[in-house]
Amino acid sequence: MGQTIAGEKVEAVESQTDVLIIGAGPAGLMAAYWMAVCGVKARIIDKRGTKVFTGQADGLRPRTLEIFDSMGFQHRVIHEGHVAVEANFWVPDEAGKLTRQGPHCSPKINESNHHNMLLNQGRIERFLIDTISKYSDLEVERGIIAESFEYDEKLEEDLDAYPITVKLRTLSDEEANPGHISKDGSGSQPANGQGRGSVLPDDWEELIQKSRLRQTKTEIVKAKFIIGCDGAHSWTRKQVNILLEGSSTEHIWGVIDVVPLSNFPDMRRLGTITHSSGTILVIPRERRLVRLYVPVQIVDSTSANRFDRSAITLEMIKSRVQAIMSPYTFDFQICDWWTAYQVGQRVAPAFNKGTRIFLAGDAVHTHSPKVGLGMNMSMQDGFNIGWKLAMVVVGAANPAILDTYNAERHPLAEMLLEFDRLWSGEFTETTDADGPAAPDKADRMVHVVEKYMDFADGLRTYYPASPLVWKVSEEEGPEAARNLIPGERFSPIKLRNQAEGNSKWTTRLLESDGCYRIIVLAGDVRVEEQKKRVEALGRFLSAEDKTMISPLHRYVPIPGRKDQIEVITIHSAPWKEVEFFDFPEIFRPFDPVMGWGYDDIWCDNSCTWDPHCGGQGYEKWGVDRTRGAMLVLRPDQYIGWVGELEEVKDMTDYLDGVLIKMPTPEV
Amino acid sequence: MGQTIAGEKVEAVESQTDVLIIGAGPAGLMAAYWMAVCGVKARIIDKRGTKVFTGQADGLRPRTLEIFDSMGFQHRVIHEGHVAVEANFWVPDEAGKLTRQGPHCSPKINESNHHNMLLNQGRIERFLIDTISKYSDLEVERGIIAESFEYDEKLEEDLDAYPITVKLRTLSDEEANPGHISKDGSGSQPANGQGRGSVLPDDWEELIQKSRLRQTKTEIVKAKFIIGCDGAHSWTRKQVNILLEGSSTEHIWGVIDVVPLSNFPDMRRLGTITHSSGTILVIPRERRLVRLYVPVQIVDSTSANRFDRSAITLEMIKSRVQAIMSPYTFDFQICDWWTAYQVGQRVAPAFNKGTRIFLAGDAVHTHSPKVGLGMNMSMQDGFNIGWKLAMVVVGAANPAILDTYNAERHPLAEMLLEFDRLWSGEFTETTDADGPAAPDKADRMVHVVEKYMDFADGLRTYYPASPLVWKVSEEEGPEAARNLIPGERFSPIKLRNQAEGNSKWTTRLLESDGCYRIIVLAGDVRVEEQKKRVEALGRFLSAEDKTMISPLHRYVPIPGRKDQIEVITIHSAPWKEVEFFDFPEIFRPFDPVMGWGYDDIWCDNSCTWDPHCGGQGYEKWGVDRTRGAMLVLRPDQYIGWVGELEEVKDMTDYLDGVLIKMPTPEV
Repeated sequence: MGQTIAGEKVEAVESQTDVLIIGAGPAGLMAAYWMAVCGVKARIIDKRGTKVFTGQADGLRPRTLEIFDSMGFQHRVIHEGHVAVEANFWVPDEAGKLTRQGPHCSPKINESNHHNMLLNQGRIERFLIDTISKYSDLEVERGIIAESFEYDEKLEEDLDAYPITVKLRTLSDEEANPGHISKDGSGSQPANGQGRGSVLPDDWEELIQKSRLRQTKTEIVKAKFIIGCDGAHSWTRKQVNILLEGSSTEHIWGVIDVVPLSNFPDMRRLGTITHSSGTILVIPRERRLVRLYVPVQIVDSTSANRFDRSAITLEMIKSRVQAIMSPYTFDFQICDWWTAYQVGQRVAPAFNKGTRIFLAGDAVHTHSPKVGLGMNMSMQDGFNIGWKLAMVVVGAANPAILDTYNAERHPLAEMLLEFDRLWSGEFTETTDADGPAAPDKADRMVHVVEKYMDFADGLRTYYPASPLVWKVSEEEGPEAARNLIPGERFSPIKLRNQAEGNSKWTTRLLESDGCYRIIVLAGDVRVEEQKKRVEALGRFLSAEDKTMISPLHRYVPIPGRKDQIEVITIHSAPWKEVEFFDFPEIFRPFDPVMGWGYDDIWCDNSCTWDPHCGGQGYEKWGVDRTRGAMLVLRPDQYIGWVGELEEVKDMTDYLDGVLIKMPTPEV
Repeated sequence: MGQTIAGEKVEAVESQTDVLIIGAGPAGLMAAYWMAVCGVKARIIDKRGTKVFTGQADGLRPRTLEIFDSMGFQHRVIHEGHVAVEANFWVPDEAGKLTRQGPHCSPKINESNHHNMLLNQGRIERFLIDTISKYSDLEVERGIIAESFEYDEKLEEDLDAYPITVKLRTLSDEEANPGHISKDGSGSQPANGQGRGSVLPDDWEELIQKSRLRQTKTEIVKAKFIIGCDGAHSWTRKQVNILLEGSSTEHIWGVIDVVPLSNFPDMRRLGTITHSSGTILVIPRERRLVRLYVPVQIVDSTSANRFDRSAITLEMIKSRVQAIMSPYTFDFQICDWWTAYQVGQRVAPAFNKGTRIFLAGDAVHTHSPKVGLGMNMSMQDGFNIGWKLAMVVVGAANPAILDTYNAERHPLAEMLLEFDRLWSGEFTETTDADGPAAPDKADRMVHVVEKYMDFADGLRTYYPASPLVWKVSEEEGPEAARNLIPGERFSPIKLRNQAEGNSKWTTRLLESDGCYRIIVLAGDVRVEEQKKRVEALGRFLSAEDKTMISPLHRYVPIPGRKDQIEVITIHSAPWKEVEFFDFPEIFRPFDPVMGWGYDDIWCDNSCTWDPHCGGQGYEKWGVDRTRGAMLVLRPDQYIGWVGELEEVKDMTDYLDGVLIKMPTPEV
């Protein structure tokens, strides 16, 4: 409806999009990834004029890194990031002298092929943006704010309707980039930065481009769906009247990213240092940086001026570190970023409003950053709603699966807050000025970490039973595969490719490309009886009659693709004793242009030149090496269904509840 | 001298550069890398309008990959490339039926942390160009040809003079991009390509940019040094009257990069298929491609029209493959690239002309591509002359080291030709049409591969004794370190960082940044006597008196840097029983801005979460775990000197012969 006259906008332009994502931080970009992969008509806007370059989040947990691997950019994270797995707890001994307790290493360290890493949020955003651009022209529209919101509930049931109306406004450069204008030394501004040296070259291009002239001033966008990923003060959340619930504590914290000058022995090791007046957290990072979380002051929460952030200075934080770290020295010349914050543990009662409006990341849960989980939870929120919504929008999945977003992610936010309350408490707990810290301080901290390890690292996810997750039990998988629990992620193993002999992690093999996958753990196919079972399964899967009983070719694919379901076979026989062409054709389908499905058959076997490839997958999964098992993986690599090779009817029932059947061919 | 009037050049511009590199293929780019890293004033030109995108070389050997790791981009090669280490030899059995012999895997497979890989030359050029841009504004100037050459020998001894004069001309688009204009289906043009799909996005930018308007038509460049990396028909080589010597054989070969449609069981495995009329080589590659080398015809070398390339068609090559591979099927829809070539084994008698003119890569050695070594040899040539010339130009190294370029690289070219003659012979050897191939065919091929394995994979380099290489023996290192042989590369090990506990391969740690490195294998520093030896070494190295006897701070550094020599310590004690600050300060030097040298002290110890980190480095190096040893690594990670911790005088003498001493301070 808008019209441009002599370069001036005289009225708002009106447009339509299927999905509007508000906020291009890690959560929003993860959701946008799925829109790009599945070819959804989508937009993603952000009020900031540029992405993050320094500071903010940095902690990356194993499950997040597995997801990055499935998206194809984890090699860049490994190249630039810093691994930190062992932790040391420094506590005063009876004479008050700081003493190392540790190093402590999780006994589950090898449950994932990836380990806790540290890398600036800005780099993660860069990798996500680069990855999105491989699939789509979808670009983050920056310096744009949403100003008004209307929702027409009457249209909710009509999937072709656009019930959401949002007015967007393009910000001026001053509005979009306050951090680059302000000179007051506030948190978003490095007090003593490295200047250009801390911004990598590919980020600079964006900084330069941001200054380009903007042509559109306002726009009315009609959307089918909206995802609010717009942070702790979420505008989207406020439009739908969802309020965060919880408490804020009375502690003010400082965070600094510095290149330390210190004789503290563990300056480059993950750990804590406990003093009578509090505990600091030490996190070694990339580019010689170390991040410190420092309890700065306790304020009176009943006073009016309960959180006066401007009173906190970098010098004040440094002095606190020096006091707690004494007698070790601490100073720095380079501070990459610093800020002060108050801990508030809050969660939204729901992550959605009806079936059209979703919220993810900090918009629905805020907490202290000290558990190193914030960016991870946010990205996994965006990843979760992203694939579900993308598949529904393109008509490949049942809209009912959207209900599972809140059901799967909300309980985890509650666990996060529970963990954070316990963990943060350990940092603000004080002792008498003269007395020693409790001698069991280190033990208590290890206990908290271990208690939440499965949750924090993402080794377990606790997704409840739903149409997407067919459970037999909360604690274990069915008899055929004790450790493959529906609702959990498929535990990573490095496998050998049958056709090539090369090794590959399942986290790379099972790409986040929108496919549902049937994983056939074919067992020992040298055994005649087992071979017959696999052949019977092959006959079932390849049936292409009118009854469409086989789940292959039964469901509507993502537009532009051939099938919605991929079959991956992993057998347990010795690699050299089996041939690729021994398997029924349905397990290695032929494409008239791309040839045989060489990437479809794998072997759980060791590999001479790769010590990661140990041939112990079946044992890890709790599956009999002869008889095997079968499972269905969702596009996010979480297990949806598990059973025996013969339980094809049950498996198809599961898929029928999730995917959209193709129209029955006319007879 | 040039002048621009109304955008028209009326006379040639004249300019100066320290190093002019002709040819921006893999050899030229490797040399350019060193110019970028060391801040040398250099230019690199190429007559082609764009870099390579498809076809050409693809084989990458372990030593090349180790070098990539030291340059910081091997993670990209691993992400995109294909590993191929096991080989199968298919030969007719007594009944004439093709039978698999294998898989054969080298017993030395774990001598390197990298294994043979396949990836298109175009991607390697992309990674090299991206890496160069991290250090310097040096850019490849494309579509430029060198037209005339003058060399003033009188100026050879004057390092400040510019004895070389080259006239450059900017080509028209038609001249620079013949492959994009021609429609005749000749070799450089995909006959049946994948179109845009086979060119990755970052390559496309360059394709687009190439069409930008060129402003300068001719230019006179005065250079101090020139490196000719301009291929088999090297213009540079012809200017200095160096002729290739050797023979060309009578065989014409076809090469095709296709996505195969075949029921041959090992289509995705490295191997050979022998038929009564010849043998084809099968090389699985990235993106489902397979490369096949196919003997097409035997021509009469005495006839006038001895090599009629235009007579070879893609269809002809395909038919040959079908005949040799029978009874297995072979076809394709996608051909990414194909060409026909004649084998010629030729080498230049010298790789340099005096001290100012150097030749590298195909300019000085041509051979068949079937040993998968061409790109490797070329890049290692460029790497070798690159660091030496860069350090000489910036005044950090003795110009005498330039003599070692020919001495080190020429014998390897001879070995390459020897290997190629034997290996290629195996492919063209024919048997009677009705008779079987020799039953020991596979054994003979394995024998050839094994004989040249150390050379081909770069596990040994055979660099002879010189001022850069102080040898005690050709076959082994000195008593203190039997397997550390001067002239060989430092055998890779994954180590734990003492300050952090993280693991890292030496190939990443020892970056190709122009540093000379003293590697202190400090042994078991828990042992009192050994600790004293290390402390004594520390006192020696930290002496900063007027005699400048310590090699540290003794030599002129690369401009902009503090030192020319870095000390890396690798001890053998258990990681947890030693502290970073236990070591004398000289081993972990303090920088007032960047802090302690946390990256300087390492431990040869295992790591719970990293099976590659096995703590067996000392054993691999043949060094006593208690007493240790000491060595000097050149900037290319080849061993220059080896001795005991006390042999500091000998070590300093070695360094004095290579580096330039700082002017003695005035008293």
